[in-house]
Amino acid sequence: MPGEPPVPVETTVPASGAPAVSAAPVTVLGLGMMGAALAAALLRAGHPVTVWNRSSAKSGPLVAQGALPAATAADAVAAAPLVVVCLLTNDAVQEVLDGLGTTVAGKTVVNLTNGTPAQARELSALTAERGARYLDGGIMAVPQMIAGPDAYVLYSGDHRAYETHRATLAAFGGTTWTGTDPGRAALHDLALLTGMYGMLLGVLQAFALVRTEHISAEEFSDLLVPWVGAMLAGAPEMGRAVDTGRHLTDVSSLAVNQAAFPNFTAAFRDQGVSSELFEPFQAILDRAVEEGNSADGLSRLADLLTLGR
Amino acid sequence: MPGEPPVPVETTVPASGAPAVSAAPVTVLGLGMMGAALAAALLRAGHPVTVWNRSSAKSGPLVAQGALPAATAADAVAAAPLVVVCLLTNDAVQEVLDGLGTTVAGKTVVNLTNGTPAQARELSALTAERGARYLDGGIMAVPQMIAGPDAYVLYSGDHRAYETHRATLAAFGGTTWTGTDPGRAALHDLALLTGMYGMLLGVLQAFALVRTEHISAEEFSDLLVPWVGAMLAGAPEMGRAVDTGRHLTDVSSLAVNQAAFPNFTAAFRDQGVSSELFEPFQAILDRAVEEGNSADGLSRLADLLTLGR
Repeated sequence: MPGEPPVPVETTVPASGAPAVSAAPVTVLGLGMMGAALAAALLRAGHPVTVWNRSSAKSGPLVAQGALPAATAADAVAAAPLVVVCLLTNDAVQEVLDGLGTTVAGKTVVNLTNGTPAQARELSALTAERGARYLDGGIMAVPQMIAGPDAYVLYSGDHRAYETHRATLAAFGGTTWTGTDPGRAALHDLALLTGMYGMLLGVLQAFALVRTEHISAEEFSDLLVPWVGAMLAGAPEMGRAVDTGRHLTDVSSLAVNQAAFPNFTAAFRDQGVSSELFEPFQAILDRAVEEGNSADGLSRLADLLTLGR
Repeated sequence: MPGEPPVPVETTVPASGAPAVSAAPVTVLGLGMMGAALAAALLRAGHPVTVWNRSSAKSGPLVAQGALPAATAADAVAAAPLVVVCLLTNDAVQEVLDGLGTTVAGKTVVNLTNGTPAQARELSALTAERGARYLDGGIMAVPQMIAGPDAYVLYSGDHRAYETHRATLAAFGGTTWTGTDPGRAALHDLALLTGMYGMLLGVLQAFALVRTEHISAEEFSDLLVPWVGAMLAGAPEMGRAVDTGRHLTDVSSLAVNQAAFPNFTAAFRDQGVSSELFEPFQAILDRAVEEGNSADGLSRLADLLTLGR
C-alpha cells in the first residue's frame, strides 16, 4: 500500500470475533489444514481476514474466530491488497487465478502452495500479466507449527512486495528471503524437504531393522537421534567439497562405503527387512567406484546425481 | 584377569616409546585406518600393545609410538589376555581365527570388524569352541574420532568379559552395552549407520538440486542442518507409533506425502537431477496408500518394509 504510513502488526489476540482494525486486511484462498492455520495466525495477529475455499464448509471454524467468509474467490480478492494462496497444487492455483479476471490487478499474491520452481515462474508471469505482484513461498513447518518459534517461510519473487508485507507475513513465523527469481523459494523448499525425506527413509529403515529383534524403536531413538545429528553436522564440509569439486577424503572413502554396503544388504535379508529403499544407493556407490572415484568421499555422489555433467 | 586387583587405566600420554607398565597388555590384530587408531588410543592410555597386520609394513608408525610388533597373529595373541580384532571383513576374521589353533584359549576376543548380526553369532560360537570369550563391537566413529568425546562403541556377547575389560575398552571412547546375544551390537551398529546413510542420501540429493541454480551447497547447509535436525527430533514419536502400531496422524499423512512427491520428481527432472535415489520412496508411498493406509503417518512405512508381516 504505497503512500500509506507503515502499519504496526498487532501481536495480541483480539477480543473474540473483533479483529483489531489497525492491522492490514488480508485475504486467504484455500482452507485446507495449512491454509486454515495461516488464516488463524493472521487473525491472532489482529488482521481482518477474508477467507474463501472451494468447498465453503471449511470456512466455518475460521468465521467463528472472526474471519469474513467470501462467496467467491473474486469477492475474497477484492477485500484486501494482500492475497495469500494455499491450495493443494499449483494447477488449482492457476485455475483460481484464471477465474479471477482483472480483480487481482494491483494486488500482491503470495502463493504458499507446494510446487516446483518452474510452476512458480509460470505463476509469477501469469500474475504479472494481470497487473499484480507475485511472491512465492515455501513453508518450512507443518500446520501445527505455524506462528510457533520454529516455523519459517522461504520467499522469492517481487522484493518490493516482500518488504511491503513482511511484517504481516511474520504472523506465520520467520521470514527468509531467497532471491528475486520466483522459483528460488520452491527450490530451497524442495531441497530442504528432500534432505528431510532422506533422513526419514533412513530412520524408518533403521526402525524396521531393530524391531525384527524386538527392540523398541522409541528406545532405539535415544541412540539414533544423537548419532544421525552428529553425522548431519558434517554436511557443511560435504557441501564445501561439492562446491569446490575437491572430493578426496581421508575419513570415509567411496571404496570403504562400497565395501561396507553388502553388510547392510545381508543384514536386511537375514532379518527379513526389504532393502528396496537402499538398492539405488548401492548402485550409485558401485558406479562411483567403477568411474574411478574410489578415494573420494561421499560428496562425489552429488556429481553423479547431476545429469549431463 | 580374575584374581588380580583392578588396574587403573592410565589416561596420561606415556613418555615416548615407554608405555606405562601398570596397565593391562592388549593385542591388536589388523592395522587398517581404524585398527591403527585403536592401537594408538591404547598406547596413549598407557597399555603395552602388541600389534599384527597381514602386511607388516603397516605396523611401522605404531612401533614408533611404542607398540611391539609380532611376526604372526599367533605370536600377537600369545602376548596379551585381551585381543582386539579390526579387519576389513568378518571373512578375514574367521580366516585369522582358523589359523590361530589353540593359542586363543583363555583369551577374550573383542571383534570390532564391521559385520552382520549373523556373522557375529557365528564367530562367537567359533571362538567358544576354541575356549575363548567373545565380545562383538560396533564402532560409532570414524578413525579420526577414536578416543575423542563423541566416539563410542556398542558391545554385545559375553557380559563378564565386558565387565573385566570395560576400563581398557574405554580407551576408544564411550562403552555401550547392548545385550548378551553377540549379534546385538552389529544390529544396533547397522541400524544406526542405516539411519546415517538415509540422511546422507537426502543431503546429497539436496546438494545436487541446489547446485543446479548455482547455490553454494556449503551455504545452503545453514538452512539444511537445522531443518533436518528439527525433523529428526520427531524420531522418538515415530518410533512410538512403530512400537504400538498406532500410525494414525493429524500432522503429515501418507496421502499428503504421496501427493507432494510428484513435485520432487518434477523438480528433479526440470533441474536435470537424477531421481534414482528417491524412486523407491515414491513406490512405497504409493503402495502404502493403495493398501488403505492413507490417513496413517510415515511411521506405517516401517511395517511395509517388514517382509512376511
